[in-house]
Amino acid sequence: MKKNCLLKKMAITAVLTALCFSVYAQEQKEYPKQEPMRPAMSEYWTPQPKVVTPGTATGNAFLSAPSDAIVLFDGKDLSEWESPKDGSPAQWNVHDGVVTVNKKAGDIQTKRKFENFQLHIEWMIPANITGTGQVRGNSGVYMQGKYEVQVLDSYKSETYVNGQAGSIYKQTPPLANAMRKPGEWNVYDIIYSAPVFKEDGTYRIPPTITVIQNGIVLQNHTTILGTTEYIGFPKVEKHGAGPILLQSHGDPSEPISFRNIWIREL
Amino acid sequence: MKKNCLLKKMAITAVLTALCFSVYAQEQKEYPKQEPMRPAMSEYWTPQPKVVTPGTATGNAFLSAPSDAIVLFDGKDLSEWESPKDGSPAQWNVHDGVVTVNKKAGDIQTKRKFENFQLHIEWMIPANITGTGQVRGNSGVYMQGKYEVQVLDSYKSETYVNGQAGSIYKQTPPLANAMRKPGEWNVYDIIYSAPVFKEDGTYRIPPTITVIQNGIVLQNHTTILGTTEYIGFPKVEKHGAGPILLQSHGDPSEPISFRNIWIREL
Amino acid sequence: MKKNCLLKKMAITAVLTALCFSVYAQEQKEYPKQEPMRPAMSEYWTPQPKVVTPGTATGNAFLSAPSDAIVLFDGKDLSEWESPKDGSPAQWNVHDGVVTVNKKAGDIQTKRKFENFQLHIEWMIPANITGTGQVRGNSGVYMQGKYEVQVLDSYKSETYVNGQAGSIYKQTPPLANAMRKPGEWNVYDIIYSAPVFKEDGTYRIPPTITVIQNGIVLQNHTTILGTTEYIGFPKVEKHGAGPILLQSHGDPSEPISFRNIWIREL
Amino acid sequence: MKKNCLLKKMAITAVLTALCFSVYAQEQKEYPKQEPMRPAMSEYWTPQPKVVTPGTATGNAFLSAPSDAIVLFDGKDLSEWESPKDGSPAQWNVHDGVVTVNKKAGDIQTKRKFENFQLHIEWMIPANITGTGQVRGNSGVYMQGKYEVQVLDSYKSETYVNGQAGSIYKQTPPLANAMRKPGEWNVYDIIYSAPVFKEDGTYRIPPTITVIQNGIVLQNHTTILGTTEYIGFPKVEKHGAGPILLQSHGDPSEPISFRNIWIREL
Repeated sequence: MKKNCLLKKMAITAVLTALCFSVYAQEQKEYPKQEPMRPAMSEYWTPQPKVVTPGTATGNAFLSAPSDAIVLFDGKDLSEWESPKDGSPAQWNVHDGVVTVNKKAGDIQTKRKFENFQLHIEWMIPANITGTGQVRGNSGVYMQGKYEVQVLDSYKSETYVNGQAGSIYKQTPPLANAMRKPGEWNVYDIIYSAPVFKEDGTYRIPPTITVIQNGIVLQNHTTILGTTEYIGFPKVEKHGAGPILLQSHGDPSEPISFRNIWIREL
Repeated sequence: MKKNCLLKKMAITAVLTALCFSVYAQEQKEYPKQEPMRPAMSEYWTPQPKVVTPGTATGNAFLSAPSDAIVLFDGKDLSEWESPKDGSPAQWNVHDGVVTVNKKAGDIQTKRKFENFQLHIEWMIPANITGTGQVRGNSGVYMQGKYEVQVLDSYKSETYVNGQAGSIYKQTPPLANAMRKPGEWNVYDIIYSAPVFKEDGTYRIPPTITVIQNGIVLQNHTTILGTTEYIGFPKVEKHGAGPILLQSHGDPSEPISFRNIWIREL
Repeated sequence: MKKNCLLKKMAITAVLTALCFSVYAQEQKEYPKQEPMRPAMSEYWTPQPKVVTPGTATGNAFLSAPSDAIVLFDGKDLSEWESPKDGSPAQWNVHDGVVTVNKKAGDIQTKRKFENFQLHIEWMIPANITGTGQVRGNSGVYMQGKYEVQVLDSYKSETYVNGQAGSIYKQTPPLANAMRKPGEWNVYDIIYSAPVFKEDGTYRIPPTITVIQNGIVLQNHTTILGTTEYIGFPKVEKHGAGPILLQSHGDPSEPISFRNIWIREL
Repeated sequence: MKKNCLLKKMAITAVLTALCFSVYAQEQKEYPKQEPMRPAMSEYWTPQPKVVTPGTATGNAFLSAPSDAIVLFDGKDLSEWESPKDGSPAQWNVHDGVVTVNKKAGDIQTKRKFENFQLHIEWMIPANITGTGQVRGNSGVYMQGKYEVQVLDSYKSETYVNGQAGSIYKQTPPLANAMRKPGEWNVYDIIYSAPVFKEDGTYRIPPTITVIQNGIVLQNHTTILGTTEYIGFPKVEKHGAGPILLQSHGDPSEPISFRNIWIREL
C-alpha cells in the first residue's frame, strides 16, 4: 500500500472510531465518579457509650438487674411502689422473694414516672389456679399507667386473642402463645417508646412497644392505638411521664405473683 | 298588673330566654354522643396465635431454641452452613459443642435465606485474647448477608464507637457497652425487619434492627442506612431473602467461638 | 511568710495542680479525630432522576397532568373506568368536561390497579345541594378499592368528624375543614403508600396517606388502620394492587361531579 | 362376606368416621363471634376541626395564603425576616411583589421559629441565567435553619443528584426533575416534621420531609439524616424550634427571586 492510501485509510478509521466513540459516549454518558474515601473517614470515637455490667442468669427465668437499672422490686420490699388511689403504701404481700397480688388492696404503681424504657418483669400463675378464660390469674402491666400488656394464664387456655397473655389488651394479639405452665415463672422483656403529642392532645408520634416472653417475640414494635379501655375504642389523651402499674383484677382463685422487676431508661 | 302588661312582660322574658339559650347553645353546642358499646364488641377470638414452647435456660447465657425455631447450630455440625465463595461445606472447627472461626476457611453463611426474623446467637472471646481495638476477636453477624452487627471484644477496650460490639458497623454505635469479659459467653438477641424496595432499587421501607446483648438493649428499632461498607457511605442495593453470615476477620490471635444459634421467622 | 512555709505552700499547690491536671486529663481523654473529607466525597451523579414536565394551572383549582401521569379522566370519556360489580362499562354521566355520579349505576373504579401513588382529583358539590350531615353530596375516593377518603359537602355543615370531607372515613378526622362552597371546585392531592403484608394476612407495614385539600394539609402521613367499614372496627385483610374507586352514595338531591383525575405511580 | 365380617367392617368404618369427625371438629372449633356493633358506635363529633378558608390560585403558580397561615412574605416588605448574623434587618431587594437575593447581605431567616409545619414558597431562576451545575441560581430553603432543600436551576442542567433542585442537599436526590424553565415560577410545597431528641442529643425521632414541586412529589416522607453539611457526613445535634432560612449562595450571575411565602403550623 502506498503511503497516500495508508493515510486515507487511517483517516477513515479515525472518523469511524470518533463516530463510534461518540455513539458510545451518548449511551454511556460519563458522569463524575464519587470521590473515593479512606476507612477512617467513616469512623468516629465519641461519645463512648456508657459501660453497663450485665445481670446474671439463675435458673430458668431469673436475670438479675444490669448495673444501670433501677430495681423496682428486689424481693425484699415495696418501697418503690404505692397505691394509685391515694399514694398510700402498696399493700401487696411480699414473701419468699416474690410479691403476690392482694385483692383487697387494688392496683399498685411505681412512685417513679417513666417515659422511654426497657422493663424486665417475671410473673407466675399459681400451680393450683382454677377458673377459665379471663378468670385465670388475670393481671396486667401498664406502661405509663395507661397502656396494658395483658398478664393471664394462657397455657392451654383460650380466650379472645386480643385479651390473652402478651396482647396489648383489647387491641393487638401476641404473635405467639409462649406460656410456661402454672407454677413456672414467665418473663416479660418490654421495650417501650412514649408517645409525642400535638398541642391538641392527639398523637404526633403514637407509643410503640416490643414484648418478648420467655425469649419469644410477641409484639414487634407494635403501634399502640390509645389507652386500654375495657369497653369501646382506645382513647387518645395527652399525658406526660407515667408509672408502671400492676393490676389487681380480683379473680376468685389463688392470686398471681411477681418478682425481679427492673427498668432501664432509654 | 293588667293582663296586657303581663303578656308583654312574658313576651319580653321569652325573648330574653330564647336569646340566652341561643348564646348558650353557641358556646355549649350539643353534639351527638358516640353510641355506647358493650365489652364483647372489642373482643375477637380468631385466629388463635400459634403455641410455642419456650426454650430452657442453662447457666448464664444459654437459652435453648423454642419449639418453632430453626436451629442453625446445635453444637454438633455445620450442616446448615456453607462457604459464601462457592457453596462448599463450611470449614470452621466444631468442638465441645461450639464452633470456632477458621481463618483459612473465610466467612460462613447459612444455606437457608431469611427475610424477617428473630435471631439468637452466643459468642465468646477467648480468655487469652491479645491485640487492641479492632484487632481483638473481630467478627460479625450479617443480616441477609449485607448488614453487619459487629462482634468484637469491647470489654475495657475502646475503638471507634460505630465499630464496637453491638454497633451497626460503620453506621450506628450501640446504646451501651454491655460486654462480658473474654472467656465468658455473650448473647445477641436480634429482631430484624427486611427492607422493602422500589422498582428503582432504592428503599421504600429501609431495614430496621433491634439488638439486645446479655439482656441490655443496644439498638432500639434502629434504621439501617444501607450495606455495611468498610470504606465510604453505606450502599442501597436491591436484594431478596438472604443468609445469616458469620465473618472470619483473620486476626492474628486466638479466634472467637459461637454456639447455640437459632432463628424464628417473623 | 517564712521560706519553709512558702515551700510547703508551693508543694501543696503542686499536688493540687497535678491532681487537677489528672482529673482534667481523665475528662479530656484524647480520642482519634474522624478523618476530614473533601466535598466531592458526598456527591454522586447517578442515576439522574427522570424529567417530568409539570402541568399547567388554569383558574382556581385546575392543574393539568404532568408529563408522566396516567390520565384517568380528561373530560372526554370513561374509557379508564368500569363497574366494580361486573367489569361492565362505567355508566356515569360525562358532560361539559366533567363526570357526574349516576345513582343508578353504582360505584365506578379504574380498570388499572395501583400500589403506591400520587393522585390528583377535583370535585364539586352542586350549588343547589340540599340535605344535611352525611346526606349532602356524599361520595368517596377509595385507595386500592378499600380505604376511603370521604367526599362530602362540609362547607358550614357539620357531621361526625371522622365522616366529614377529608376524613379517613370512620377512622381519622381531617386536621382542618378546608372546603370551598357548593358550586366551586375542590381539589384533593393524595400521596398513598400501600401496605406490606405478612403471610398471615396482617400488616407488616400498614398503609399511610397524606391528603391535601385546596392546598391545605388534612392528613399528614396518617396510618390507615384497616378497610373502611360503615359498621364496626376497620378490618385487616390481605390484598395486592387495587383500583381507585369512586363512590355512588345515592343521596336524594343533585349528585356531585368530578374532573381532571390523574395519577403518578411512586 | 359373612355377617360377622360385615359387622366388623362396619364397626371399623364407624370408628374411622368418628375419628374423622373428631379431627374435623378440632379444625372447625367454634369460637365466640365478635358482638355486632351499630354504625353510630364508630362516629364521634368533637372536637370539630378548625375551619380554614383556602387561598386563591392566580396564574400558573401563585396560590394565596389560606386564612390560618402566617404570611412570611406578601410582596411588600421583609418585616418577618432578619440577618442570621446579628438579627439586623434583612437586606434583600423587594421589588415588583418579589424579593431578590442580595449577595452582599448574605442569608436571611425568619424572626419567628417553627417546629412542625406546611410551607409554601415560590421561586424563579432569572431568564438570563448563566453558569453551569451548582453555579446556576444556587440557593436553598432551610428547615429550622439546619436542613436544606436545594434551590437551583436544574432545567436541562445536570449536577450531582443529591445537589439538584428538590434534593435534601448532600443527602437524598429528588424522585423527579420537575423544573419549570428560567424566567418561570416554581413552587415548593413542603410538609416538615421536627425531630424529637434524646437527652444525649441524638434523634429519638429524626426529622421527616415531603417536598412537592409544581404539583409533583419529589420527597415522600423522607427521613432527614442530620444537618446539611457541604463537607462530610450529616451531623446530629440537639436543637429546638428554628427559623426558615433562605440561602445567599453568591453566584456571579443574576440572582434568583422568591415570592408568596406562607407557613401553617401543624
